[in-house]
Amino acid sequence: MDDERYERGRARFLEVHDEKALAAVEGLGDLGRAIVGFVYGDVYANDALSTRDRELAAVAALVALGRSSQIPQHLRASLKAGVTPDELREVILQTATIAGFPPAMNAMSTLRSILSEQGLDR
Amino acid sequence: MDDERYERGRARFLEVHDEKALAAVEGLGDLGRAIVGFVYGDVYANDALSTRDRELAAVAALVALGRSSQIPQHLRASLKAGVTPDELREVILQTATIAGFPPAMNAMSTLRSILSEQGLDR
Amino acid sequence: MDDERYERGRARFLEVHDEKALAAVEGLGDLGRAIVGFVYGDVYANDALSTRDRELAAVAALVALGRSSQIPQHLRASLKAGVTPDELREVILQTATIAGFPPAMNAMSTLRSILSEQGLDR
Amino acid sequence: MDDERYERGRARFLEVHDEKALAAVEGLGDLGRAIVGFVYGDVYANDALSTRDRELAAVAALVALGRSSQIPQHLRASLKAGVTPDELREVILQTATIAGFPPAMNAMSTLRSILSEQGLDR
Amino acid sequence: MDDERYERGRARFLEVHDEKALAAVEGLGDLGRAIVGFVYGDVYANDALSTRDRELAAVAALVALGRSSQIPQHLRASLKAGVTPDELREVILQTATIAGFPPAMNAMSTLRSILSEQGLDR
Amino acid sequence: MDDERYERGRARFLEVHDEKALAAVEGLGDLGRAIVGFVYGDVYANDALSTRDRELAAVAALVALGRSSQIPQHLRASLKAGVTPDELREVILQTATIAGFPPAMNAMSTLRSILSEQGLDR
Repeated sequence: MDDERYERGRARFLEVHDEKALAAVEGLGDLGRAIVGFVYGDVYANDALSTRDRELAAVAALVALGRSSQIPQHLRASLKAGVTPDELREVILQTATIAGFPPAMNAMSTLRSILSEQGLDR
Repeated sequence: MDDERYERGRARFLEVHDEKALAAVEGLGDLGRAIVGFVYGDVYANDALSTRDRELAAVAALVALGRSSQIPQHLRASLKAGVTPDELREVILQTATIAGFPPAMNAMSTLRSILSEQGLDR
Repeated sequence: MDDERYERGRARFLEVHDEKALAAVEGLGDLGRAIVGFVYGDVYANDALSTRDRELAAVAALVALGRSSQIPQHLRASLKAGVTPDELREVILQTATIAGFPPAMNAMSTLRSILSEQGLDR
Repeated sequence: MDDERYERGRARFLEVHDEKALAAVEGLGDLGRAIVGFVYGDVYANDALSTRDRELAAVAALVALGRSSQIPQHLRASLKAGVTPDELREVILQTATIAGFPPAMNAMSTLRSILSEQGLDR
Repeated sequence: MDDERYERGRARFLEVHDEKALAAVEGLGDLGRAIVGFVYGDVYANDALSTRDRELAAVAALVALGRSSQIPQHLRASLKAGVTPDELREVILQTATIAGFPPAMNAMSTLRSILSEQGLDR
Repeated sequence: MDDERYERGRARFLEVHDEKALAAVEGLGDLGRAIVGFVYGDVYANDALSTRDRELAAVAALVALGRSSQIPQHLRASLKAGVTPDELREVILQTATIAGFPPAMNAMSTLRSILSEQGLDR
């Protein structure tokens, strides 16, 4: 994978997430390089979709699939990109209609913990 | 299910989709009543999330789960709600990184057919 | 696979489904033999659960997973085992709360076709 | 959501589960309200399917989808509704044939813990 | 996406599949470019795993997920890479133990059609 | 289930896994008996596919489905059957293209822990 693409991916990853998340991904060897270079250097680097919209869609997809390990990271990225707590609550509720209540219940508990950590709970 | 909620759901359903889609849902008996009354009368009736954002999120969730029967309906609703063809292409590509390329390939073919029908293909 | 188990499986399969379905499964080679011998000769042969309850549970699991190719076979087996049309409608509606509305909508359309074929639609 | 529906849902929820489970669901905001009002106030309130049959079907659907966070709650509700330990073991085994052995193994371990807690293990 | 990577991906894609499959993928716009450039130009270009082993693993993953649209393409690629018909039958049967019989039944029917087309059925 | 099949399954299970894993499976009652007798006594006992290839395929299927509880057992069995650490890394990376990056990230972390335990990390 060429260096320019990787550097573009690293820069984009840090805009969306943070240093700690990057270190975790870079600890995954070739898979980590594929995530940085392809997901952030190719896909997220395209400005056809705003970061806010990407994160809204990412949360919906992750909740639908019940991918509990990656949901916290993208809930945090959503808040950083300007999705409001109410919008996150609503996208989780709506995803319950598409994927069932069980994965939405888990995601809502995770969201509540993150909002509480960030002093954003009402 | 009370009448007021059902009427609110019908009106909201028609804003998002169209008469033909409503007839199909209403042909499903109690399940159809639950979709109109709960999904559209309760969930979609909440203005905490714009219809555009709801449809963007719905497409991401449906593509992630590979729900091919419902994808066309929500791609059409996305276009009606102001999501652009480029944004739809990009949300499908991004969902490939979360759910794999196979369901994204199917969704992209479906999108291309719908854009072609509507004279929106480039 | 020993003959006695296979014969027990065949007999049990025919109680639950019919000759046509058996021919389709037996056309699948070793996989078909595993289905007859293990699923019907071992699992379904155990009387810890009634055939009616097995079919109710099978429909719920198949709808939840969106396994559209196998749903018609088990809807027919459910009716044969004494599950009523209203119970089938209700188990599909309930499964929508666990797995989302999209797979339930597909299953409900399939059920309506089967009930219509059998003159059981209201 | 109207009060009458919500109260019907709360009463039905308490018949199926218990106070502790209700408190957890009510802690989920709008999502919790949708679960109580729609799942229990609309769906479970319909007597077209017995609570015992609902729980048998719910366990099958949850095991098939591998929804480990919600399985304990519905195994307990099944026992409360009169599903026997042998029937639960058998529905989990049968679901292995539909969804594979891995989610069934996890569910069986969970069932064994619950039966042991309740002094129902053999 | 740089040209060198894309050309490497195209060459690798044609080794694994064929011209007709490439045309279908290249008809998918940016998604098609990502498949050729990333999946074949980056991932499949790495010789840490033989093409035969990649296809065996791809079939198992696709069958497990029930991705019926992509299964025929990878069954053909498996045969081209030297996986035998008996090995394919067996990997589908084994995947039934991990993901359930329903997706394995569909995949086995598809395999039988492909073997018949190629004169490889016994 | 007949004794001969069960004994064949036990012997095959011990070749693929180990005593500790067998004890865990045998603790699952009828489900454990079905796993030993059917999965190992019938399916794995067939030599149409090598143990190495079975484990490669099992890892791909389990990663695709995100079955985190069973992944460690089959990563260990893969190493025991001669799949190299580099091949396992690559099969996980490839499965990311079929099932998305999230389940592959979890599996790669698990693989790294297992390789580290066994002194096989680079």
